[in-house]
Amino acid sequence: MSTKYVIGIDLGGTNTVIGLVDVKGNIIAKDAVKTQAYTEIEEYTDAVSNVIKKLIQENGCEGQVEGVGIGAPMANYYTGEIVNAANLPWKGIVPLGWLIEKKTGLTTKVTNDANAAAIGEMKYGVAQGMNDFIVITLGTGVGSGIVAGGKLIYGHDGFAGELGHVTAPVLEGRSCGCGRMDCLETYASATGIVRTARIWLETRSDASVLRSIESEKLTSKMLYDAAVQGDALAKEIFEFTGEVLGEAFCNFIAFSAPEAIILFGGLANAGELLLEPIRRKMNEDVVFLWKDKVKVLKSSLPGADAAVLGASALGWK
Amino acid sequence: MSTKYVIGIDLGGTNTVIGLVDVKGNIIAKDAVKTQAYTEIEEYTDAVSNVIKKLIQENGCEGQVEGVGIGAPMANYYTGEIVNAANLPWKGIVPLGWLIEKKTGLTTKVTNDANAAAIGEMKYGVAQGMNDFIVITLGTGVGSGIVAGGKLIYGHDGFAGELGHVTAPVLEGRSCGCGRMDCLETYASATGIVRTARIWLETRSDASVLRSIESEKLTSKMLYDAAVQGDALAKEIFEFTGEVLGEAFCNFIAFSAPEAIILFGGLANAGELLLEPIRRKMNEDVVFLWKDKVKVLKSSLPGADAAVLGASALGWK
Repeated sequence: MSTKYVIGIDLGGTNTVIGLVDVKGNIIAKDAVKTQAYTEIEEYTDAVSNVIKKLIQENGCEGQVEGVGIGAPMANYYTGEIVNAANLPWKGIVPLGWLIEKKTGLTTKVTNDANAAAIGEMKYGVAQGMNDFIVITLGTGVGSGIVAGGKLIYGHDGFAGELGHVTAPVLEGRSCGCGRMDCLETYASATGIVRTARIWLETRSDASVLRSIESEKLTSKMLYDAAVQGDALAKEIFEFTGEVLGEAFCNFIAFSAPEAIILFGGLANAGELLLEPIRRKMNEDVVFLWKDKVKVLKSSLPGADAAVLGASALGWK
Repeated sequence: MSTKYVIGIDLGGTNTVIGLVDVKGNIIAKDAVKTQAYTEIEEYTDAVSNVIKKLIQENGCEGQVEGVGIGAPMANYYTGEIVNAANLPWKGIVPLGWLIEKKTGLTTKVTNDANAAAIGEMKYGVAQGMNDFIVITLGTGVGSGIVAGGKLIYGHDGFAGELGHVTAPVLEGRSCGCGRMDCLETYASATGIVRTARIWLETRSDASVLRSIESEKLTSKMLYDAAVQGDALAKEIFEFTGEVLGEAFCNFIAFSAPEAIILFGGLANAGELLLEPIRRKMNEDVVFLWKDKVKVLKSSLPGADAAVLGASALGWK
């Protein structure tokens, strides 16, 4: 019987979502386990493997699943390991791919969530038919998956594509969780944009609906809502964030000359609020060779399922 | 008869050097034409093709040449064209590869000089056996050739790898020839380092042998000589330049996670004067994953012939 399905797993700090996916990128069935409920990796991989087996059984897909793809933080494609992931319960180096493969009998590939997103866009999304593109994930942090010449760039060690940790083209002196200063994600992630808001609310005095919200409780969603309602300060925060990204994109383009840069994840949902300043700044400042030539697109993978779908794309041989 | 040789061509603003190269990377014979002597591309390619034929004949290599590789500024690998090269006599788009191929009957590939250097390092130099590395050329400008997964990154349009035109991690407001501000090459090229010297000699008051040289006549070689002789200001200029490069390398590493970054071209000859601050700053500031893991090497291709050798490597199928 030919293989028609793959398993996609989005391993997040809170939930692990497991989906059974067909060749067209439809999620046939899915289930989840609580990542933090398992302090031992053996127990965690037992639970995940049981869900995989259950999904296959319940949907009559025995013998038709080609493999498992997992998107996880700090995941190494070459070794199938997770290495010192700050937000997961298992410390040090964890042989995730090997364990899932052993417990399910299915070929298992592991990569970080942004690489999974890039493969997902290439297989099912807006990057279909593209050989050179970059996916930028704008979530709690900033991640990236870089495809060049039709292949994902994994690098010498399997960890390539950490564009959240390149130096931002503004040097305000923001410290990053990684220990460096002024990493792109200190400005352009969901937490980075909130950081901008908190700083501006302190240093500036113009009126804003944001002033009625307790600083500690501010979220990027609140900034978005305020901007959509026309709050000038909130709009300016998105403009600044977009410009920082647009300027950073100039550097990414000089590196791999992509056909498109694709935005993925929470903050990407801000749409034109972010896309307009990104495109404007990028085309204003990119090396002349690429002026008005590189597309900036929003992921076309369906919202909540995008990460599972991305990971599943890795399961195909 | 099997093919044992390739032709390598280093197309520079002043001279075009043409070499006959064997499989081991020995230049069997070479000759040159004056690039600026030919205002018409037809005449230039006639002259170059005649030298190619002469080198093959004189060395009894008829039927044994596999192809021609050309390293040239603003060269597009996909089309074989040179596009708006500022320092060459032929304006607009010039079908260089097609003309040489037509006139010699030899398969001809064209790429920019830094990409040629990268292929040269992979075929004959320090990058033999490496699948992931970056060559940075430090000449009048800064160029780069990026190899990922064993393949050179050409990008969507053939122009990838313009790392001289990423934003430097210092924002002094130096304008670049490309129209942007604070491109890496405004700090870290042979002209960039002279620019630093001129600025520092104006803004600072410490003693230096450099003060006896007319500002307009300063060269990077003079800075090197002064530093070697122990001039404190000159040494500090190399340290600053190395630190700028080291910090920029942190970003390049986050992109493609290379095994090594290889320095090529004039300024690379400064050796430890530049390598020490590069390595120090890079390992101080790179994302923890790569601390003390990425090699910084000097090209091992032989001095004056390195560019011809690099280009020749493109001639092999």
